[in-house]
Amino acid sequence: MRIAFIGLGAMGLPMAIRLIQAGHAVTGFDLNTRNRAAFEAAGGQWSPDAKGAVQEAELVWLMVVSGDQAHDFLFTQNHAADMPANAMVVMSCTQSASKAANTGEALTARGLRVLDAPVSGGVVGAEAGTLAIMVGGAQTDFDFARSALESVGSNLFHMGVMCGMGSTMKTVNQLLCGVHIAVAAEATHVAENAGLDLAQVHRILSVSAASSWMLGNRGPRMLQDEPPVTSAVDIFVKDLSIVAEEARRAKSGLPLAAAALQMFLAASGQGHGLADDSQVIRAYRGLNRGDQK
Amino acid sequence: MRIAFIGLGAMGLPMAIRLIQAGHAVTGFDLNTRNRAAFEAAGGQWSPDAKGAVQEAELVWLMVVSGDQAHDFLFTQNHAADMPANAMVVMSCTQSASKAANTGEALTARGLRVLDAPVSGGVVGAEAGTLAIMVGGAQTDFDFARSALESVGSNLFHMGVMCGMGSTMKTVNQLLCGVHIAVAAEATHVAENAGLDLAQVHRILSVSAASSWMLGNRGPRMLQDEPPVTSAVDIFVKDLSIVAEEARRAKSGLPLAAAALQMFLAASGQGHGLADDSQVIRAYRGLNRGDQK
Repeated sequence: MRIAFIGLGAMGLPMAIRLIQAGHAVTGFDLNTRNRAAFEAAGGQWSPDAKGAVQEAELVWLMVVSGDQAHDFLFTQNHAADMPANAMVVMSCTQSASKAANTGEALTARGLRVLDAPVSGGVVGAEAGTLAIMVGGAQTDFDFARSALESVGSNLFHMGVMCGMGSTMKTVNQLLCGVHIAVAAEATHVAENAGLDLAQVHRILSVSAASSWMLGNRGPRMLQDEPPVTSAVDIFVKDLSIVAEEARRAKSGLPLAAAALQMFLAASGQGHGLADDSQVIRAYRGLNRGDQK
Repeated sequence: MRIAFIGLGAMGLPMAIRLIQAGHAVTGFDLNTRNRAAFEAAGGQWSPDAKGAVQEAELVWLMVVSGDQAHDFLFTQNHAADMPANAMVVMSCTQSASKAANTGEALTARGLRVLDAPVSGGVVGAEAGTLAIMVGGAQTDFDFARSALESVGSNLFHMGVMCGMGSTMKTVNQLLCGVHIAVAAEATHVAENAGLDLAQVHRILSVSAASSWMLGNRGPRMLQDEPPVTSAVDIFVKDLSIVAEEARRAKSGLPLAAAALQMFLAASGQGHGLADDSQVIRAYRGLNRGDQK
């Protein structure tokens, strides 16, 4: 399949390389050229402009930073008009379901096909080809893209026929992930203020009904002063803001997601936005009895 | 060891029976006589009054409903005065750390020894002898009681030398459990309002970074209209109220625990206090777009 891959950053590059390895003809474009050499070495064809990348494509895969950036690429810069009739756009940026639905409608109105296909699993999953891909879109479109999607992610889920259903699934996932990190910090903070042995506390919690994947993964880094950054505080500011935006649009109150967002926001405001997301615990230390650690 | 066991309800009876089976001489007392026959059949000696149960005991195990009830038994009814000098009181009721500490100090002042030893694992764990027991108290006291504790719970944790540290550990555990159930309901509610296939959503979440023990355990029951009651909504009203009470005493803000408590309270106020705790999802259905299910 002739595929245009737009956005060759930390996630996009390994995803594009897996498409090349699966036998697809992949043309790539990114304003930032730092990954050009690696992309070309893997067999990709770099295009110096977006129009050149998409004008022959059967499938245009957007792995840009946000739904706004995807919309801008498609309609403000108007590269939707550069695509062949009936080309399929696959949107893998993390965005709200309503934004995905709006962009999807606009693409359909121009005679293009579209899948809403956010991913989960991070750079590690992208490199290993083990991403989860949560897809919203018509069954025939899903079937058309299936082999390409499967070469990028080993966990492929078709959530429903509406563009936006994939993004809803990702939103639900991120709501849980964000709250689980924040509450792990909240619980650890209570234990630390009470003078308990925190490593022992985490050992006990990890084998109890209180366990979560995030507690097991982020818990140990909460006990470090300067842990390595696996995913930053500001990523959850972004992802929980999408949850909040979508809830506001639906006029839904989501008390736990809202409270968790405040803690990530506060940690970011304290200057820890680029720190590992486990460091949301610093927001609790600031909140209660000063920054005592 | 001569053990008095006070409170032979759903949890206390199987705990006392395990002590008898381990070779201890167990005298039992409960105002409610419904489990008397079962206790005696297992080899326990029923005492018609509390004084008779405790006056020869080396160890008095309190498995009553609350810290207030324990305090009332010990000091209002004044059964602390009925115990031999240097007897050890083991408090296994769920209570706040400060209540455990206060009661512990009062016992110590009267020449008695004390362990704060709340349990986790429910009736199933009590019957199997696999309870987790989280203990606060002096090392020598812990060592004295160890074999008795081990015959009741296979997961024994000495959290620290202060009476109250066991209860803090239980509080931290219940904080996480309560928030994890509430956020599982919040996320399921978002997915149900978006029209996703909820069984598929739970399958995806269960293998992702969004997974938690509670989501796996309570998630399926959230999708049932009248699930069997494993643990009731009102249990988490109680346990998260202990978290809130302890946080208020410490002048600590705990935003997620506070928000989760509101949802369990609201579910209880809707008339669902005795329903399975998975039904906290009904509070979300009441909150957003009416009770649409």
